[in-house]
Amino acid sequence: MDTSAQVVKALSQVIFSKRYTPLHEPVFPGNELAYTKECIDTTFVSSVGKFVDQFENMLADYTGAKRAIAVTNGTAALHMALILAGVKSGDEVIIPGLTFVATANAVAYAGAIPHIADSEETTLGLDAVKLDMHLSKITELRNGECFNKDTGRRIAALVPMHVFGIPLDVDALLAVCEKFSIPMVEDAAEAIGSFYKGKHCGRFGKVASLSFNGNKTITTGGGGAILTDDDDLADLCKHITTTAKTPHKWEYFHDMVGYNYRMPNINAALGCAQMEKLDAILASKRTLAEKYTAAFKRIEGIRFLTEPDGCKSNYWFCTIILKKGMEAERDSILEATNGAAYMTRPLWTAMHRLPMFENCPRTDMSVAESLEKRVINIPSGAGIIGV
Amino acid sequence: MDTSAQVVKALSQVIFSKRYTPLHEPVFPGNELAYTKECIDTTFVSSVGKFVDQFENMLADYTGAKRAIAVTNGTAALHMALILAGVKSGDEVIIPGLTFVATANAVAYAGAIPHIADSEETTLGLDAVKLDMHLSKITELRNGECFNKDTGRRIAALVPMHVFGIPLDVDALLAVCEKFSIPMVEDAAEAIGSFYKGKHCGRFGKVASLSFNGNKTITTGGGGAILTDDDDLADLCKHITTTAKTPHKWEYFHDMVGYNYRMPNINAALGCAQMEKLDAILASKRTLAEKYTAAFKRIEGIRFLTEPDGCKSNYWFCTIILKKGMEAERDSILEATNGAAYMTRPLWTAMHRLPMFENCPRTDMSVAESLEKRVINIPSGAGIIGV
Repeated sequence: MDTSAQVVKALSQVIFSKRYTPLHEPVFPGNELAYTKECIDTTFVSSVGKFVDQFENMLADYTGAKRAIAVTNGTAALHMALILAGVKSGDEVIIPGLTFVATANAVAYAGAIPHIADSEETTLGLDAVKLDMHLSKITELRNGECFNKDTGRRIAALVPMHVFGIPLDVDALLAVCEKFSIPMVEDAAEAIGSFYKGKHCGRFGKVASLSFNGNKTITTGGGGAILTDDDDLADLCKHITTTAKTPHKWEYFHDMVGYNYRMPNINAALGCAQMEKLDAILASKRTLAEKYTAAFKRIEGIRFLTEPDGCKSNYWFCTIILKKGMEAERDSILEATNGAAYMTRPLWTAMHRLPMFENCPRTDMSVAESLEKRVINIPSGAGIIGV
Repeated sequence: MDTSAQVVKALSQVIFSKRYTPLHEPVFPGNELAYTKECIDTTFVSSVGKFVDQFENMLADYTGAKRAIAVTNGTAALHMALILAGVKSGDEVIIPGLTFVATANAVAYAGAIPHIADSEETTLGLDAVKLDMHLSKITELRNGECFNKDTGRRIAALVPMHVFGIPLDVDALLAVCEKFSIPMVEDAAEAIGSFYKGKHCGRFGKVASLSFNGNKTITTGGGGAILTDDDDLADLCKHITTTAKTPHKWEYFHDMVGYNYRMPNINAALGCAQMEKLDAILASKRTLAEKYTAAFKRIEGIRFLTEPDGCKSNYWFCTIILKKGMEAERDSILEATNGAAYMTRPLWTAMHRLPMFENCPRTDMSVAESLEKRVINIPSGAGIIGV
């Protein structure tokens, strides 16, 4: 049997549904409708309402962050996180080449330039060793800040992204951040429910972003959040994301350029119901990952991506990686699986290969380019096992 | 009886509720819950789903625009409208001083500088005569484009805003746009259901923005839309607001810096239900405005703001204007009405008086500054009369 037929067979051993299986369909097993109805009944569907506060509190409690601020989506959350970390127009921000385009776009919104770095094979996250070598060559400290000697620009932040919810090597990257005096801003868009050495992803940077898009582990329709342990930053974040209006009984005064990034109450209502079921959803996804691990073990040249030792992944997107040399099989596997009604997809096109970012400074990108040709996401929704 | 007591009395003659009356509470008299439930039942709560397309079609049908593109909120809509109109970093954009801060912020997001213009007393909209005189003095044409001689910057767009849904003098402003070769981008955030000479507000500029925030005539929780008659601009708008991803069966390729501005399906579901009831909501608000007109007619020195001849206002926010000389009474009226459980509020602080825009170029702002001290919004929700 060729590899694509073996992959289809492995999927069929885990997924019993006869209908089309999407990559990640959300599940609404709890109070989603009840809370939404409450919004409509009370007319509080918009920016004011108890579910926004409640969702923020639930996120803070769950992740252990001191504060969480809910916003319209993960892109807005990362944009805000960069601003809060002090990223200014004309700065450079280190991001992985292997990420969803929102990471790079958010840097552009802040007026900054992505500085694109390579990833490593184990977690698909930023390669700390390669980055350290790169920064040693091209940077220098000026008044305690890191500057790119080639471009003359300040390197204002480093944005690791936990790919598909697999925690990357946080300690190694924190060491790089410390060595080069670069603040860490964590893009934890894919990582709600993922833990690195017992601490929730997004708790390691100065600020972090989460996403609750429709395809995420839990969803608010569209939504995101900023996490931070710094009360001043959290207050500033709430202020900037709600048009920077100063409190007054009736005057409309705004003291800086603000954004309309607040999450509507009706979306937060979904979020509260989803948070109540997060543990059950994560348990179901973990079971799915275990079944996949067993099913793919038998296929020569295919590795099912698992959490690193000491870490817990949310297994947001289940992922298989082809051995080097099997690049030519990627598209036939994608054809065969999608043809068999199992939605699968490859990695994102790496950021340095997109036209708007192709001239950005970068490291050697050989690992990212190799992974692009060998990584496939397979159906991952909690509904496959059930909640 | 002093004026504030008279105002409270007038409100009590129109509003029979004994509980607190908000400025603009939304009403959900139709399929809001049914459509929301459908989203949850089918799991289509996010960026894919039939309600987004349906809402866009309903908006296009209702306004008569060829295309409508739904986005996360009115601020995002205006930001996109400016980009679509060709506004670039370093340009100037003419906006009214009397507007919600989002108008000025959207200009800033595009990297442009607000050029702030005065308003006129009849509609509270941009004063075309004053603007014409101002532009005659400070601008010159270069290769068919308008430039500010003082700053050297291009004036890339003029953004009239229909204040509280009252259509402003569109013809006069279109003449100014033509005379000075400046494209019009309409901020119709407050104007769904408002018509200027039989044509929906937002149909006169190259592109326009609408808002469906919780306090608007109809709401999607948070939401907005771009209107245009240009298919190419509409396609580009859809592309930019959905992360600029190029269509492919599985590849993730993006060809420009895009935004995550799409409206989630669950918010569009609310919008579809609200659009079905728009006529009823507008009729109810019109009745309310008629009752207010009668009730305030008896009060010396107070004008209830009505639609200009040949125009139809949605009466989004009902508004009273104090005669010049009565400025000192504004705050006592605000105190008395809010104290009597009728929510009222003054105009926004004019843009040129906010710290982040105080150094922007501008016209004389004497009318805006005078209106700021004399305008009061009074309870305006359709629920006061009922739908």
